[in-house]
Amino acid sequence: MLLPATEHTLIKAVQTANAAGQEALFRMITYHLGWEGQGSGPKAIGKRVRSTLLLLICAAAGGDWSLALPAAASVELLHNFSLIHDDIQDKSELRRGRRTLWAMHGAAQAINAGDAMFSLAHLSLTGLAMTTDVNKYAEAAKMLSQTSLRLTQGQYLDLAYESMQDLKLDQYWPMAWAKTGVLIRTCTQLGLLVAGVTGRQAKAFTTFGEKIGLAYQVHDDLLGIWGDPAEMGKSAHSDLLSGKKSLPVLFALQKQGPFAERWVNGGIPENEVAELAQLLEAEGARDYTRDEAERLTNDALKALESAKPEPETGAALAELAEELGRRKV
Amino acid sequence: MLLPATEHTLIKAVQTANAAGQEALFRMITYHLGWEGQGSGPKAIGKRVRSTLLLLICAAAGGDWSLALPAAASVELLHNFSLIHDDIQDKSELRRGRRTLWAMHGAAQAINAGDAMFSLAHLSLTGLAMTTDVNKYAEAAKMLSQTSLRLTQGQYLDLAYESMQDLKLDQYWPMAWAKTGVLIRTCTQLGLLVAGVTGRQAKAFTTFGEKIGLAYQVHDDLLGIWGDPAEMGKSAHSDLLSGKKSLPVLFALQKQGPFAERWVNGGIPENEVAELAQLLEAEGARDYTRDEAERLTNDALKALESAKPEPETGAALAELAEELGRRKV
Repeated sequence: MLLPATEHTLIKAVQTANAAGQEALFRMITYHLGWEGQGSGPKAIGKRVRSTLLLLICAAAGGDWSLALPAAASVELLHNFSLIHDDIQDKSELRRGRRTLWAMHGAAQAINAGDAMFSLAHLSLTGLAMTTDVNKYAEAAKMLSQTSLRLTQGQYLDLAYESMQDLKLDQYWPMAWAKTGVLIRTCTQLGLLVAGVTGRQAKAFTTFGEKIGLAYQVHDDLLGIWGDPAEMGKSAHSDLLSGKKSLPVLFALQKQGPFAERWVNGGIPENEVAELAQLLEAEGARDYTRDEAERLTNDALKALESAKPEPETGAALAELAEELGRRKV
Repeated sequence: MLLPATEHTLIKAVQTANAAGQEALFRMITYHLGWEGQGSGPKAIGKRVRSTLLLLICAAAGGDWSLALPAAASVELLHNFSLIHDDIQDKSELRRGRRTLWAMHGAAQAINAGDAMFSLAHLSLTGLAMTTDVNKYAEAAKMLSQTSLRLTQGQYLDLAYESMQDLKLDQYWPMAWAKTGVLIRTCTQLGLLVAGVTGRQAKAFTTFGEKIGLAYQVHDDLLGIWGDPAEMGKSAHSDLLSGKKSLPVLFALQKQGPFAERWVNGGIPENEVAELAQLLEAEGARDYTRDEAERLTNDALKALESAKPEPETGAALAELAEELGRRKV
């Protein structure tokens, strides 16, 4: 129910960009969102984690999730805008097994398609003034803008870390928080805003959002090295290839063992990544990362319990938390 | 009065981005806005045309311009976000005589700094809910998002035109309108919204905004070929060097004369630009472009008169229109 409704709202929001003379811009957006072009379909569309979370939280807090749909479409558009720009910045040519926008249309038009999607995210949110009221809309708009600013701060750190030496393990958390955690928490808060829930219950749900946001990023770092390439739609050990300072890498660099000696800023050559992934694992980076994701997921589930959600949507939220933080590696 | 107040509001808005650990992102923004770094100062800051227009319109329509400051800062931030991304897309290394952000920090961080400024534009606008009321804020936010979507559509056309053959002169106007006209009109409309003016007077002011927006772009096209390089802070004939399909170029391409024979998509070699600029002029492209800017400026001044502005700010608006559409070439 949630996903088809979200897709319907997303499609309506994106249609705004389908102006005469600019159909190609519109098609870039619909391609990126998984609806059109080579490889389109459920796998390209993905799970729409952020909108699903937002709607489930709204329902679990006793609200009418259908009123939150403009916000759900908005967070997906914001997230996808950031993916389009991230792919240009990281020079990633594949996402979910499909060629990225910049790889197909060049960086200039891909920057622009991302900017268009950023605009659409804000435009979609204006629908909240109709489904709820103008004060809730204004609050939501402020949250969305603060969140997108934090996303750019996270992306700044991610890019800056690439060339930095002697990073400490602790420096991982502000980056993960700004890049992923904040938006996931905002999804929670937008769901609560529409449901009209405040006080202790809202606080518990928000903690749930905070914890699963971090668990999601940590688990993603695990998958970026040890995930199944076919399932990820990327190369094996892709984060090692690209030289990403993810949690397992920062863990091992701080240890200054054999992995740290072999590490070079800027990425590991393809013929060495399998060996370096093994080194990382032998030094305990894989276990450490999995344990962190585990810990954060358990914290999230505790917070969820104390939020006393509606039973059915509460179960769906618990399942979502398990999936984000403990997907099989 | 207007400019210092705008700068003060802009600085406060931008301070939001000055978070611990991300000072470098903040410094990219303050550099781009002309406040810091090599070449900073009044020339780098420029005239803040869009915010000045917005505040003048508000005052000329009988409103209190100080209440419109959050919107004034917002349109400057939106405009400057688009400049940062345009410079990456066009590979422009100089703006106002200073190195562009991507030339200094690479495209990845410059894309990100632009995205941060886009977020700040939306964040700054939320201040309107305090200076006016939440309904006016909501209306303004919708206008801003629709405008930024149109900007990306204009930029799409600008980029797409680069490689297109057989463009007609008429195809210039949708691009100029989306790239420049819409935002200038929006500045007018935001000023009117804060002033609370509707009906015939609002319509006349809006027409003024529409006409000067187009006049500004047309005149900018004139300067892009025949402007004083020292004053522009760019190379001489820069639009010919970069192969931009500006109004004089489209005029001459449609004529299919000697200039059209020499034109190659993608830019003219440096040792040929002076000669091609002369060819363009001999074929009447310079006169045609100046006449169009003239016509649009006169239309704007007529609309301004019929809007019956407050005398002092009305005179300032007329002066602004003259400057945008008829700056000396």
